[in-house]
Amino acid sequence: MKEQTADGLPGFNCPVPLSDAKHILLGHGSGGKLTAELIRAVFLPAFGNEYLARLDDEAVLPVSGTRIAFTTDSFVVTPIFFTGGDIGRLAINGTVNDLAMSGARPLYIAAAFILEEGLATADLCRVVESMGAAAKKCDIQIVTGDTKVVNRGKGDKLFITTTGLGLVERPVTISANQARPGDQVILSGTIGDHGMAIMSHREHLQFENEIESDTAPLHMLVAAMLEASHEIHCLRDPTRGGVATTLNELAASSNVGIEIDENKIPVRDAVRGACEILGLDPLYVANEGKLVAIVPLNAAESVLSAMRAHALGREAAIIGEVVADHPRMVLLNTAIGGRRIVDLFFGEQLPRIC
Amino acid sequence: MKEQTADGLPGFNCPVPLSDAKHILLGHGSGGKLTAELIRAVFLPAFGNEYLARLDDEAVLPVSGTRIAFTTDSFVVTPIFFTGGDIGRLAINGTVNDLAMSGARPLYIAAAFILEEGLATADLCRVVESMGAAAKKCDIQIVTGDTKVVNRGKGDKLFITTTGLGLVERPVTISANQARPGDQVILSGTIGDHGMAIMSHREHLQFENEIESDTAPLHMLVAAMLEASHEIHCLRDPTRGGVATTLNELAASSNVGIEIDENKIPVRDAVRGACEILGLDPLYVANEGKLVAIVPLNAAESVLSAMRAHALGREAAIIGEVVADHPRMVLLNTAIGGRRIVDLFFGEQLPRIC
Repeated sequence: MKEQTADGLPGFNCPVPLSDAKHILLGHGSGGKLTAELIRAVFLPAFGNEYLARLDDEAVLPVSGTRIAFTTDSFVVTPIFFTGGDIGRLAINGTVNDLAMSGARPLYIAAAFILEEGLATADLCRVVESMGAAAKKCDIQIVTGDTKVVNRGKGDKLFITTTGLGLVERPVTISANQARPGDQVILSGTIGDHGMAIMSHREHLQFENEIESDTAPLHMLVAAMLEASHEIHCLRDPTRGGVATTLNELAASSNVGIEIDENKIPVRDAVRGACEILGLDPLYVANEGKLVAIVPLNAAESVLSAMRAHALGREAAIIGEVVADHPRMVLLNTAIGGRRIVDLFFGEQLPRIC
Repeated sequence: MKEQTADGLPGFNCPVPLSDAKHILLGHGSGGKLTAELIRAVFLPAFGNEYLARLDDEAVLPVSGTRIAFTTDSFVVTPIFFTGGDIGRLAINGTVNDLAMSGARPLYIAAAFILEEGLATADLCRVVESMGAAAKKCDIQIVTGDTKVVNRGKGDKLFITTTGLGLVERPVTISANQARPGDQVILSGTIGDHGMAIMSHREHLQFENEIESDTAPLHMLVAAMLEASHEIHCLRDPTRGGVATTLNELAASSNVGIEIDENKIPVRDAVRGACEILGLDPLYVANEGKLVAIVPLNAAESVLSAMRAHALGREAAIIGEVVADHPRMVLLNTAIGGRRIVDLFFGEQLPRIC
């Protein structure tokens, strides 16, 4: 980090200016540019190792001759109950999905709770039961945990951190840095459902068809895809920051360009409508039951067929391809025939969406 | 949970009355009776499985022919910087220690951060650097992570959840349910240092000799103990709730009684003094660099010698023994010749100590 300068704060020299932010902003948690900067400037230099440097959502680790997948996420979504799910189900499915994105079979989850004094006991019970049910559905066990309570006004009802442990049994190498020019970009279904379900609650928007979170466990969909081909190069669930952020991350890690076609990307009418009302771009809105796969051309059709045969991949589509041109840049061919750069979002579009 | 009744709250039936608390209290995070009740009433019924039911601080899991130790803890200590440590070092050492308490070699850590909007960037950098240094000292890698940001007033500077993954290579079975009558109770050193270091900061107490947190990684001490004997029955680090809580948990899990002698328990003068000023019992005060071991009589002296030969066990002492009488009860022979029950604490003695 030689090019970075000390920020001159008294008592401690921060290694970077963090876009000149002396304080943490909501945008540092957005999944966009500020988050990326925080990771690169603060976490990587202090923790740096080959696993973290891959910037995957999960690490695949050698343990005693096996390959263990390991992933953690804190969930701070507000409200904690929303159409189609709750913070507990989101936490389990989110962790199962991060494990699945390495091709691992999810095995165990650790769950840590930070409760705010005054939280209704009934709300806690409801969230915990929902977690138990979600885990059972995925055939994964919650084997260890922790509970802390913070004073009223020092938390927000409850935060849950789930950490997953899985086993990579197949001979696959799935990582953000594996995309190659010519690879096809496959999206498993409609985008923006989770983010707009949360925003509809917050903004009290009413639609003829209520928008539901798409929270779902994707490990069986991934298993079906891997049955079709072991040649999958990248898998990522486009949560915080949406498909736009995920594609930028993959393009940067693999040092390739990506081109996608707007009219191939499925978006529900209600989600599109809500995005228009709120001035949001669905490409940046969080999904919690979708994945993006980067697959070599020769395997794309068989993987796509396997996805469409699975309940969670019925609307799967090839939405673009990986190119050698414009490395680290994502281009969108718009529905009206134009072309634009899809960049990382700078500030926060939707805070506390997961 | 047939004996428990619904609490009749509207919209959801909580399976238990939780000591009739309709809302979460600070005491539910104390590590005492309310925490135990929360675990038994809410978490076990929803998540229930053989690993969680052991109520160890870590789970030992079969994965592809190996034994993996897995543990998680959220750290919400306030203040985040204190004499002898900070929240980051505490998180790394705490997780290393929980892994070590199963006899595992600590390998990897996942770290999830919940930052409050407005946190000084320099404070975050200082904590993260401290975590990196603590991990390096333990030869453990922080391989995956997550960062969320919550609105100002919805968090408290930063919370850190660390999850550890270790490998149990030795043929040991160390668990809270392994204590047997006749076993010796060994304590690795002075008690109450961490808790009173935090309280001194909060209460602005000044002592001639400042009280320092004892936060330290215990994996090498445990390795030395296991070199001396594989017959160690229980290991636990007496953090939240102190030695009193740990002994009660071990007595309950193993369905045995425990008797300890007050005058064999080492307490620093400054800690004793601070406890007297604040009306606290050092037996209930948190430690972050100590362990309690339950060891068969025939192995006790060799384990004790190995401990005393290690820097973190110099003041180790046999403080009592496991008995068949009064199962699930801990008795203290007091310094003045009396005898009293050492029960679980009911409310919160020291909130947000770790």
